[in-house]
Amino acid sequence: MAKNFSLPRGATDILPQDIPLWIHIEKTARQILNLYGYQEIRTPLFEETELFARSMGQTSDVVQKQMLTLQPSKSPENEKAESAHYALRPEGTASVVRSYIENHLDKKESLSKLFYIGPMFRGERPQKGRLRQFHQIGVEAIGPGTASPYLDAEVIACSMYLLKSLGVSGAQLKINTLGTYANKEEFKNILRGKLSGKLSELCWDCQNRFERNVLRILDCKVPACKMAVQKLKLNYEWLDAESKTYFDTMKKILSGLNVIYNEDPYLVRGLDYYTHTVFEISDSSLGSQDAVGAGGRYNNLITELGGPQVDAIGFALGIERIILAQQGKIQVPQPSLDIFVIAMEEKFIKNAFALVQQIRHNGLSADASYEGSSMKSQMRQANKRNARYVMILGEDEIKANEVALKNMQNGDQEKVSLNLINETIQKLK
Amino acid sequence: MAKNFSLPRGATDILPQDIPLWIHIEKTARQILNLYGYQEIRTPLFEETELFARSMGQTSDVVQKQMLTLQPSKSPENEKAESAHYALRPEGTASVVRSYIENHLDKKESLSKLFYIGPMFRGERPQKGRLRQFHQIGVEAIGPGTASPYLDAEVIACSMYLLKSLGVSGAQLKINTLGTYANKEEFKNILRGKLSGKLSELCWDCQNRFERNVLRILDCKVPACKMAVQKLKLNYEWLDAESKTYFDTMKKILSGLNVIYNEDPYLVRGLDYYTHTVFEISDSSLGSQDAVGAGGRYNNLITELGGPQVDAIGFALGIERIILAQQGKIQVPQPSLDIFVIAMEEKFIKNAFALVQQIRHNGLSADASYEGSSMKSQMRQANKRNARYVMILGEDEIKANEVALKNMQNGDQEKVSLNLINETIQKLK
Repeated sequence: MAKNFSLPRGATDILPQDIPLWIHIEKTARQILNLYGYQEIRTPLFEETELFARSMGQTSDVVQKQMLTLQPSKSPENEKAESAHYALRPEGTASVVRSYIENHLDKKESLSKLFYIGPMFRGERPQKGRLRQFHQIGVEAIGPGTASPYLDAEVIACSMYLLKSLGVSGAQLKINTLGTYANKEEFKNILRGKLSGKLSELCWDCQNRFERNVLRILDCKVPACKMAVQKLKLNYEWLDAESKTYFDTMKKILSGLNVIYNEDPYLVRGLDYYTHTVFEISDSSLGSQDAVGAGGRYNNLITELGGPQVDAIGFALGIERIILAQQGKIQVPQPSLDIFVIAMEEKFIKNAFALVQQIRHNGLSADASYEGSSMKSQMRQANKRNARYVMILGEDEIKANEVALKNMQNGDQEKVSLNLINETIQKLK
Repeated sequence: MAKNFSLPRGATDILPQDIPLWIHIEKTARQILNLYGYQEIRTPLFEETELFARSMGQTSDVVQKQMLTLQPSKSPENEKAESAHYALRPEGTASVVRSYIENHLDKKESLSKLFYIGPMFRGERPQKGRLRQFHQIGVEAIGPGTASPYLDAEVIACSMYLLKSLGVSGAQLKINTLGTYANKEEFKNILRGKLSGKLSELCWDCQNRFERNVLRILDCKVPACKMAVQKLKLNYEWLDAESKTYFDTMKKILSGLNVIYNEDPYLVRGLDYYTHTVFEISDSSLGSQDAVGAGGRYNNLITELGGPQVDAIGFALGIERIILAQQGKIQVPQPSLDIFVIAMEEKFIKNAFALVQQIRHNGLSADASYEGSSMKSQMRQANKRNARYVMILGEDEIKANEVALKNMQNGDQEKVSLNLINETIQKLK
């Protein structure tokens, strides 16, 4: 018996009726990111597993629980293959940084402004708003000595402008700073100090995080943890003066750009690599999984991955979240067929078929029925395909070297000479 | 010490300078396939491993040796996950058919003309022209009772027209027919009969293929096998009369469309699912791996995968192969920056930055240096970025509420009032 196959859990089919929306989002993103001086880069969808462990942090939830790794093949063709283990990319930053280092972009330009659009993968337990294959638009601005509050503000403003251009105008922006790497270590110590007596109040995950990833406790969604965290009095005592000034300047520039933000000292992001500015964008229409995107500065990641000392900042937005959050604000037309050609008798299929090819190669979309079916059935097909025009070939038309042209919007019908068909096609564009 | 990471073997980075070519290819493919009445579909990049084994054939080389499967995760979050094993898609047809069945498209339209553009994955030993992540443009035309020589000819003509539009005009088309499923079984028997005495002349792989996939011996590249195969006298004795007529009609239609082809009785394609028409397109400029694309009819695959009895035909073209074969015929302009804004003194960065945002939001790309660097250094950056115009903000300009606008093509320079900046931007478009 034939087995029935279904969509892998946590993955989706994007069917033809949804494609125009996706194409619109990708095109808009490319346009706007180009305006901001970003250029597209496409990295492979898998990398060495260790690249992600190194960049996101061996102790991060993603690396600990959500990596989709590839099985080393046991076939003879692969026996001699390298021993590296690969994983599907759970996010875009690590791959872009790997490519930046490998291609020595620091030697070629003072600031590399790169963007990507594409699928990411996480082995999560699928649930509403959490997919195993999801899609992101992301940017990375990387270059030696480019840490500047102006660039931070620009990157944040760019993410908000992009969202607005994609119909997500009510998104909320939260910002915070983690300071330098040393500041962040101090922050972790302070946090461990404040939490050490309260471990039993925390969820099992957070008790685990206390040693390996204490900052992550700050954005745990479990109510008990949220309560424990809210009682902590966090007031940036871990920041040095320079980091404070950097953050204050950045906020001033952001305000100058009319970007509205909330400061949130609890915003830390789950990944090891952030330093200084971090931000998160949410949309209340999304319910419990309300994040639309997030980003931050990561000045130490490039050296951590074997590269030169260069500064970097980036963000990523979730396309599926954008689609939910725009709530129909993006109106894109469904594609229609320009001309459906009808052969009144089976023996004219040949003529219909030749006409269809001629129309296509003159730049209008066209189709015909490949089986000899009734006029009524072919008309139904034309309607189903949303055809703008129908061309009909019958005995009379073939004899007169003509075709009957019917406008499907207003029902007007006229005869057109096949000698003038190219001109007619141009007029119908 | 920081480890150095590199690109996975058999995968590539598509860097910013290569992106315009990829975007052009994707855009052209979408346009032309729309003219032919195809609509885009996007399926996940992984599916149940068994879907590919069922569709391509358990004994096919791809399934036996080249599948990249995902490792089942051992984390607590996944413990209760379904037992299905997943693999990265080695080709597009199986996924599209799975989606066609699952979404009951046979109930919704008489003929579904679907196309996809995207990455495919094979665990091959990487070598020139063979990648672990490669990219394909493919179409599938699926529908009940749609097996028609017209559709076959159209699909083939479409693949050749698409290649020509992508600068691959010298590609060679080979066609063949395998007949019905029963004919194909008969073909296998005849072949086993003719080869049984010559097994020792064949390569190790082909000796293995004799039982499990005898047709594949016909396109083995090993010289000894090629010689043994060329001595076989194959003359379509396995075809029934109806299959012969179908193929003859198809060839006549193809000639009517001025599509030049060679008939090749040795062309069988390595996959189980083909019946009737098969074709392969090669370009001699590619050397030993000269296939640009291939396709064929697969009337039994949909039932094999648990779906209704519907006919289908499709093809896939390799984007990397197209890029090699077009040999620079596709000329796409490298992106340039419209305006680079220069702040003559550090204190004017704020003004430069505001101006940059204003330019972008008026639809031209703009950038500035975020560090206070010398005029000379900023000019160098503008040149490196291939900027069309430079706007300079100095003491004099700020006082006069002006900006100096320099045309980088002809060197012309003029002062522009900041009050009229939006109008100026419109003029520079």
